[in-house]
Amino acid sequence: MAKIPYKIYLEEKEIPTSWYNVRSAMKNKPAPLLNPGTLKPMKAEELEGVFCKELVAQELDNDTPFFKIPDEILDFYKMYRPSPLMRAYRLEKQLGTPAKIYYKFEGNNTSGSHKLNSAIAQAYYAKKQGLKGVTTETGAGQWGTALAMACAYFDLDCKVYMVKVSYEQKPFRREVMRTYGASVTPSPSTETEVGRKILAEHPGTTGSLGCAISEAVEKAVTNEGYRYVLGSVLNQVLLHQSVIGLETKAALDKVGEKADIIIGCAGGGSNLGGLVSPFMGEKLRGERDYKIIAVEPASCPSLTRGKFAYDFCDTGMVCPLAKMYTLGSGFIPAPNHAGGLRYHGMSSILSQLYHDGYMEAVSYNQTDVFEAAELFARSEGILPAPESSHAIKGAIDEALKCKEAGEEKTIVFGLTGTGYFDMVAYEKFHNGEMSDYIPTDDEIGAYLAKLPKTG
Amino acid sequence: MAKIPYKIYLEEKEIPTSWYNVRSAMKNKPAPLLNPGTLKPMKAEELEGVFCKELVAQELDNDTPFFKIPDEILDFYKMYRPSPLMRAYRLEKQLGTPAKIYYKFEGNNTSGSHKLNSAIAQAYYAKKQGLKGVTTETGAGQWGTALAMACAYFDLDCKVYMVKVSYEQKPFRREVMRTYGASVTPSPSTETEVGRKILAEHPGTTGSLGCAISEAVEKAVTNEGYRYVLGSVLNQVLLHQSVIGLETKAALDKVGEKADIIIGCAGGGSNLGGLVSPFMGEKLRGERDYKIIAVEPASCPSLTRGKFAYDFCDTGMVCPLAKMYTLGSGFIPAPNHAGGLRYHGMSSILSQLYHDGYMEAVSYNQTDVFEAAELFARSEGILPAPESSHAIKGAIDEALKCKEAGEEKTIVFGLTGTGYFDMVAYEKFHNGEMSDYIPTDDEIGAYLAKLPKTG
Repeated sequence: MAKIPYKIYLEEKEIPTSWYNVRSAMKNKPAPLLNPGTLKPMKAEELEGVFCKELVAQELDNDTPFFKIPDEILDFYKMYRPSPLMRAYRLEKQLGTPAKIYYKFEGNNTSGSHKLNSAIAQAYYAKKQGLKGVTTETGAGQWGTALAMACAYFDLDCKVYMVKVSYEQKPFRREVMRTYGASVTPSPSTETEVGRKILAEHPGTTGSLGCAISEAVEKAVTNEGYRYVLGSVLNQVLLHQSVIGLETKAALDKVGEKADIIIGCAGGGSNLGGLVSPFMGEKLRGERDYKIIAVEPASCPSLTRGKFAYDFCDTGMVCPLAKMYTLGSGFIPAPNHAGGLRYHGMSSILSQLYHDGYMEAVSYNQTDVFEAAELFARSEGILPAPESSHAIKGAIDEALKCKEAGEEKTIVFGLTGTGYFDMVAYEKFHNGEMSDYIPTDDEIGAYLAKLPKTG
Repeated sequence: MAKIPYKIYLEEKEIPTSWYNVRSAMKNKPAPLLNPGTLKPMKAEELEGVFCKELVAQELDNDTPFFKIPDEILDFYKMYRPSPLMRAYRLEKQLGTPAKIYYKFEGNNTSGSHKLNSAIAQAYYAKKQGLKGVTTETGAGQWGTALAMACAYFDLDCKVYMVKVSYEQKPFRREVMRTYGASVTPSPSTETEVGRKILAEHPGTTGSLGCAISEAVEKAVTNEGYRYVLGSVLNQVLLHQSVIGLETKAALDKVGEKADIIIGCAGGGSNLGGLVSPFMGEKLRGERDYKIIAVEPASCPSLTRGKFAYDFCDTGMVCPLAKMYTLGSGFIPAPNHAGGLRYHGMSSILSQLYHDGYMEAVSYNQTDVFEAAELFARSEGILPAPESSHAIKGAIDEALKCKEAGEEKTIVFGLTGTGYFDMVAYEKFHNGEMSDYIPTDDEIGAYLAKLPKTG
């Protein structure tokens, strides 16, 4: 048999034409979102004030297995998809493992991550609905960049509230967003009621993601022709991100491989949920078993140390409540460099699957993750994002287990993005200045004690 | 006929297995390098003290048409090659041009540019020769990054002298190099004779590329087991970079297209020379005509306003002399953000071809180049490097000429890299703070008056 190439590229015509809704295969469906005021399940009409109509339909649909991807979105996907499935020959050699390691590389686009897959979908439905624009928040800036690119494509106004400290300390991401025509406002700002209130109470504040979310939502609901969009956690986002998993499966089929272990980093769950969707579908239907592993930072261990309960999705407690593994909406992780994994909760879909035993979870210290990142960079040539490096560390550990056991398993992990805008983190790692603080049980317990009572 | 896809990918087995030496088709060969002391043509033995033996052989060979690419290099190429040839459908639509625009995208690897194609070759021959390591200089850092990656692959020591002002102001590039295990020293340093001398004379100096070259060369020739490597200008570099042009041609053939116009940015000439090599070969042999255009910054116009003469390759006047279009080795361009295009000279091969009328050249102001860059980013999704954006501007102008004339020409340009580490430049552009200074005739004349007399 011919040697499997380093990069398995599907052809453009092999890009999936439908997204896969893993909820359709779940016996226990993810719990519905609750209205923060009434604590009753949110109805479509309520959600449509905040989100686009068609996205609300996708959000609430637990049964339809496939959603056709509109041609306009497919056209955009063709600019950077199919993304390559890479065979990590050199990493395997470096580790001396009999395991076969594959990774789906989603960083080969200017946003530098998988976020674009859902950004373009959300921008499309906003345009189709005749909206003027969308609002969102961004911390490190990956999601904001992706959304700015998507809005530039559809000539939509894009209003990004960027956490003030990031706005000031990460000017590069900000300029990428501006290059794509987005307006970027440091949050808290004087543009919104909630921003002015916070500024009056805390004049010197450098902002928080919770506050930026609140400003973006307020801007969307108080301005005609605007809606709010979100880059992770939501069911609709996992639906769009299923394109990652569908392509991965098609590429493996193409070279006659079957995955044994599937690994992804997990913050809000968009990448992991997308990657595993079709495999999880097979597992749920009992067609094939896969070991599926979520990797999270030890500093923000929602799956491994959180509680499966209803909680607010935002720190401002204005957004709907979701049933999920959570550390409490007030939980603030110790400073780490995986900005995309610092979320207190987790996608309801993944939370339910984890709760039902279909998925495992591990957590790693930051320094160990960066060691894995550097080993990977030197062997595979790609400089990984800190978030993605959690999956790398997970894959390396599984490959080393295979080495010990002498097993030739097939490991597939998601390499969600590149680390070009994270070099401050690498610098700290090189200089031995990286923090590995892990929250104590008491700290986590204190936040969990404040979870909302939903009966 | 099926629509040509957005991305034309060759298969891994279609990566060229030989580099093409365009000198073999030239009637007027590029003039030989001269010894800076004797002003006589450099012999192989003289060059081998500075460069690896096999690279010297490649440097001096004006006749052999093809050099087999060693398997070890091909293996490395497979990690990021073939690079995609993209069809710029969206840009065409934006411009309303009947022209067909293609671009060869070389930024899809962690070094972010085409530099890796030659870095891996030079590292390979150093390893093969049993050397301990290589030395080089870097300004903006693209070449240093590429070399660090290549050296990590072959476990070679990599010693980079980085212009001090860049070392301090561009810490991100520095950290990428360190991630790949390179040692990065701000230049001037106390590690070399020349560095100490310059520091004594100019205690507060922020360094220059000329000084960094001198330090790198000194380190290589005074340390056993080291050689010096260079990322552009040299014949050997253009040879390695021919892989760009060979792939481009193969991809066009695959979809049944013929190029009419080929455009590349030109600093030292590595990208342009590599891109045009096989097309130029056909043109030189009279098989087919192509319009070939070099694009340079108006602030550093070596082809459009320089002189075809022997000159030093470095500002320190310690390196060999090359016959080339030059602005004088003392010429310092006004500050601009295309660090890779700030070289006072030009590859001897390209200089000879331009002199003989096989190539055209144009120059553009920086602000116009960034306008083109932003238009491109918003339509094609890729954030281009400032250097590459010169070629974009050239391609847009040609496409607009086609629009005016109603001609459906096929334009191919080289998109050498991404701009992730150039966001300071984009910020200046967004804030209207960009300088467009162009040297006066008197300024250029003063430097040209000091060209060495070589009889």
